[in-house]
Amino acid sequence: MSRGRFITLEGGEGMGKSTQAKLLADALKAKGIPVDLTREPGGTPGSEAIRALLLHPPGEGWDREAEALLFAAARSDHVARRIRPELESGNWVVCDRFIDSSRAYQGIAGGLGDKHILALHDLGSHGLLPDLTIVIDAPLQDVSNRLAIRDAAGSDAIGRRANEYHASVNAAFLAFAKADPKRFQVVDGAGEIDEVQARVMQAVAPLLESS
Amino acid sequence: MSRGRFITLEGGEGMGKSTQAKLLADALKAKGIPVDLTREPGGTPGSEAIRALLLHPPGEGWDREAEALLFAAARSDHVARRIRPELESGNWVVCDRFIDSSRAYQGIAGGLGDKHILALHDLGSHGLLPDLTIVIDAPLQDVSNRLAIRDAAGSDAIGRRANEYHASVNAAFLAFAKADPKRFQVVDGAGEIDEVQARVMQAVAPLLESS
Repeated sequence: MSRGRFITLEGGEGMGKSTQAKLLADALKAKGIPVDLTREPGGTPGSEAIRALLLHPPGEGWDREAEALLFAAARSDHVARRIRPELESGNWVVCDRFIDSSRAYQGIAGGLGDKHILALHDLGSHGLLPDLTIVIDAPLQDVSNRLAIRDAAGSDAIGRRANEYHASVNAAFLAFAKADPKRFQVVDGAGEIDEVQARVMQAVAPLLESS
Repeated sequence: MSRGRFITLEGGEGMGKSTQAKLLADALKAKGIPVDLTREPGGTPGSEAIRALLLHPPGEGWDREAEALLFAAARSDHVARRIRPELESGNWVVCDRFIDSSRAYQGIAGGLGDKHILALHDLGSHGLLPDLTIVIDAPLQDVSNRLAIRDAAGSDAIGRRANEYHASVNAAFLAFAKADPKRFQVVDGAGEIDEVQARVMQAVAPLLESS
């Protein structure tokens, strides 16, 4: 049995990643591909417990160092107990956020450095990288509007950060994609959900052909 | 105001570290030194929440990688929000377990490698090292008896590990002490509590003279 493919969706907040991840998983299943849809932080009992600590810190909030270590710990559990076993049994995995979110948020926007985030990933998850990473990119103004609506409904410790931080995160994702065009595909997140989905399926097409 | 001194107590389980840490803090206070007594994992609201995850894992238990990352995250919060501020305000800090426990348990006994544990400490806690680390060492047979009593009363995920693991941990602490005699003092943990305490105070004497 051949190893399954590992696809991650990345991008700033309000880009529609979760919606697109679900639509992608459904579309792959409709083609007869066994798919495990998951998300980070979370995806296993241990990682979900760490997610709760990250989104609702028990003290005054986490420093960037503690936050990066917690994300790496959650990812380590997720990779060891869910993602790797799924891939090895031949299933595909679609994951809403993965290592590139840590690189963009804590590494670049948070200033901890990409090198350190990748070192944590090497240690925690043996450096597992996706076969394909789709970065959803939309004009920041659209995103600000969506986030304003979400914030009005109450958001979490990470969602509440300032606009420059989000701009820096977006720029980081685009820079990663530029530096590694073999792994990354940037998808325009503007327009209706089904328009974006059609672009996501286009990005996935080469992976479908080669499998 | 001069920086406070940072003293850690290390050693395998059942060595009487917690008892000796408390007695040491009391003795220093009796000499008019302001002391903060703390322990790891824990010591801040964030670290205590991580401690709960470490001792009672929500899933099937943590792999050594996730465990090492969680300990580093807890230590990062503890150092940033409690230990460093205390030291900088001139107070002494007595801590029951610190980085050398991660080195011994996950690094050596767990096989993750000392180098990786120290790298996590550099990232998470800017590599803060104690001024003095007291390793309490007792014959393993004594310790096995004490642990058997503790186990009968119910123990946690780390306490339940096999005897060879504990032997490997003990050997690691002694090796660290041998490699860095300037920072470490090995104290014989055999005998009565007050006998051990007298040895601890002897180990601390040079620090008291120099401050």
